[in-house]
Amino acid sequence: MKLEHWGSLIGLVREKRPLIHCITNYVTARDTANAILACGGSPVMADQPEEVKEVTGISDCLLLNTGTPNKHSKTAMKKAGREANRLHHPVILDPVGIGVSAYRMDLILEVLKNVKITVIRGNASEIRILLNILTDVTSKSNQPPSHGVDASPEDQITGDNITGLVETAKALSAMTGAVTVITGITDIVSTGSETRLIKNGCSEMAQITGSGCMLDGVIASYVAAVQDFSSSDTGQSGLLKAVSLATAVYGLCGERAAQKTKESQGGTGSFHQFFMDEISRCGESDLKGGLNIEIS
Amino acid sequence: MKLEHWGSLIGLVREKRPLIHCITNYVTARDTANAILACGGSPVMADQPEEVKEVTGISDCLLLNTGTPNKHSKTAMKKAGREANRLHHPVILDPVGIGVSAYRMDLILEVLKNVKITVIRGNASEIRILLNILTDVTSKSNQPPSHGVDASPEDQITGDNITGLVETAKALSAMTGAVTVITGITDIVSTGSETRLIKNGCSEMAQITGSGCMLDGVIASYVAAVQDFSSSDTGQSGLLKAVSLATAVYGLCGERAAQKTKESQGGTGSFHQFFMDEISRCGESDLKGGLNIEIS
Amino acid sequence: MKLEHWGSLIGLVREKRPLIHCITNYVTARDTANAILACGGSPVMADQPEEVKEVTGISDCLLLNTGTPNKHSKTAMKKAGREANRLHHPVILDPVGIGVSAYRMDLILEVLKNVKITVIRGNASEIRILLNILTDVTSKSNQPPSHGVDASPEDQITGDNITGLVETAKALSAMTGAVTVITGITDIVSTGSETRLIKNGCSEMAQITGSGCMLDGVIASYVAAVQDFSSSDTGQSGLLKAVSLATAVYGLCGERAAQKTKESQGGTGSFHQFFMDEISRCGESDLKGGLNIEIS
Repeated sequence: MKLEHWGSLIGLVREKRPLIHCITNYVTARDTANAILACGGSPVMADQPEEVKEVTGISDCLLLNTGTPNKHSKTAMKKAGREANRLHHPVILDPVGIGVSAYRMDLILEVLKNVKITVIRGNASEIRILLNILTDVTSKSNQPPSHGVDASPEDQITGDNITGLVETAKALSAMTGAVTVITGITDIVSTGSETRLIKNGCSEMAQITGSGCMLDGVIASYVAAVQDFSSSDTGQSGLLKAVSLATAVYGLCGERAAQKTKESQGGTGSFHQFFMDEISRCGESDLKGGLNIEIS
Repeated sequence: MKLEHWGSLIGLVREKRPLIHCITNYVTARDTANAILACGGSPVMADQPEEVKEVTGISDCLLLNTGTPNKHSKTAMKKAGREANRLHHPVILDPVGIGVSAYRMDLILEVLKNVKITVIRGNASEIRILLNILTDVTSKSNQPPSHGVDASPEDQITGDNITGLVETAKALSAMTGAVTVITGITDIVSTGSETRLIKNGCSEMAQITGSGCMLDGVIASYVAAVQDFSSSDTGQSGLLKAVSLATAVYGLCGERAAQKTKESQGGTGSFHQFFMDEISRCGESDLKGGLNIEIS
Repeated sequence: MKLEHWGSLIGLVREKRPLIHCITNYVTARDTANAILACGGSPVMADQPEEVKEVTGISDCLLLNTGTPNKHSKTAMKKAGREANRLHHPVILDPVGIGVSAYRMDLILEVLKNVKITVIRGNASEIRILLNILTDVTSKSNQPPSHGVDASPEDQITGDNITGLVETAKALSAMTGAVTVITGITDIVSTGSETRLIKNGCSEMAQITGSGCMLDGVIASYVAAVQDFSSSDTGQSGLLKAVSLATAVYGLCGERAAQKTKESQGGTGSFHQFFMDEISRCGESDLKGGLNIEIS
């Protein structure tokens, strides 16, 4: 696929209807499923160790999300992850709430130790904490605090700290081999060697639960629809494009939903509805002039 | 109740407010609860083996759904199912994702072995797979693939395969004694001896997660509101009417929601909202000229 | 904070953005999270015994809800509750479905035995059953029936039974030391010595799942934002005001959403959206003339 036709990936997702196996939390499972359906994929949620290998086997992509983990999460994620790796399926990891407990941190480190991850997506606090842990596993007790599952105020992406966060994303990609996505006011997508800054999106997205999880689902669908994701350099470059496009399209849908919300004097309920509307209606022709992706 | 007044069942559900005990998945539990409330029932979700017998005991109907099963699902479903059978309460079974793993297949077969089911509802792939398994338990490895929890492309109900699917529904009803519902572009409702084709509904219903689960909740509420469901032939005939009406009314609500979505240039977010609106507002007088139920 | 400026608590919640640790059910977890975000708080859901102590430790308030309990609920709620008590964090308890099984009743009694609760909120059936059990633990088998997780018809709050229910609320507060909230057509908030009747709200709130759970989240956010909640008499008095304000504001948002729903000829889907809109947009200036709080 040539760069100038990259927008056609939107149609390709709807055509291929990739099946996304989600091992995720019970708070945002519904919204994640609806976001996957809205962008053209097909979701299947299954998290019991006894069935995840088979479900991964019939799917096109695996999405691991550590919100509301339970005692079976570690086994289920490792079993599914190894099977996805064996089949060369992409694996998306969202380390939700890595800073809230040693239990989640341990779960995420175990997953990373056993599964090759294709894309890691989190907010600035989550990605920063993950990198710190990987760099020096003993420093856990010295971590700056996290604000639950949201980014800490000091981690809000601004003009001042963007350079540092780009370095964080690059370093995590270099260590893990995954494309790293840090979402915030500006989104950062990096393969380690190449980085994109995405300035689509709006503040309303942080006011509904699950906007990160929904993006995971959209990224998973786009990545699954790209055939060549695993093939060496071209693969990483194609992956960077697919993830950047997914993130930018998602942000653009958010912007348009925010505009509609304002026009109808609505709040977060209306925003949520309009956001899903935009994701489900977005086609290649809707992108013209809207995407805001910069090379860093 | 006479046939000409069958539409009054809509009001009866709202008047009786039947309590529906749901053992269901965490992806669509909220939407199922809201659909039950919207059509006039009252939902109670409880899935721990220690409490399901009591919860079934105070309820009017049991709804079993195999999405996101866990290690307690089998015990919980069997305990609740036996209690419902003992009390002559109707039991609705939705074999969600029967084709995705041996684990789900085993769960569903165990439930069928231990519990007399009143209504089985699934998409064409799920019902086809279930019948094949019941017909020859050793043939599991020869099953055609399923597309996660959605119907496979080859199982989409069209004019070409409707006859075969009607036979599938009849055969499953004959084997299990349950009314079988296959939902798709045309919905098939069969008692084995009598069959209805329901041509209400729209493609938008397949673009949101949980539209099948929500219908289960509406069917459960309608069936619970009909007193004579278990009384021999009259019972099966009454059951056929209640299930057909629930399915047709649900489809009609979908059509009207799709029309409103189109008028407001919305997407799947708006459709979901309008769909719930229609279910909650639908009364007997709204049915005039809208229902499309054919005798097969 | 002076009484005349009590409405400014609405802004304070948004400014402080209190982190609410929720151990809750999978049916309404999403709506509870969105309600917390809409009123200005920040939710974190975590229910595994291994991580709840840490999550409570970084949070400002603990919310315990007994919908869809599982075998780990008792341990998780006790561990989190004790940690919240140790840190002097407020603890909100919603005894969802206490009447549906001995299992839930036992869970709730165990929590009350081990954790000092700041606010208990339920419908009239739940609070009545809880008080009866606490008054005479042996009388369980003589309980009048409950209608699942909703109030029984005989427990609907009317002009006739309001006096009795006020006494119930007072008695439960006297026994537990908690502020008791009974929600229904009129809401009752009592510290035992002081009681408020709140006449905001509308019948549409009972037609969506989770409207009680969402209120729990709003109460938790308001209570967490008030600094002096735990300091003796002033504390109880401040707590009464915060809980009454939260309940009244929530009811007022419901009324306005019902009005918008009527104007747009919508149903429960539209009501849900407008309700969340109102909660997210409500500021101090929106309260003028709308709150209906009486001293009992």
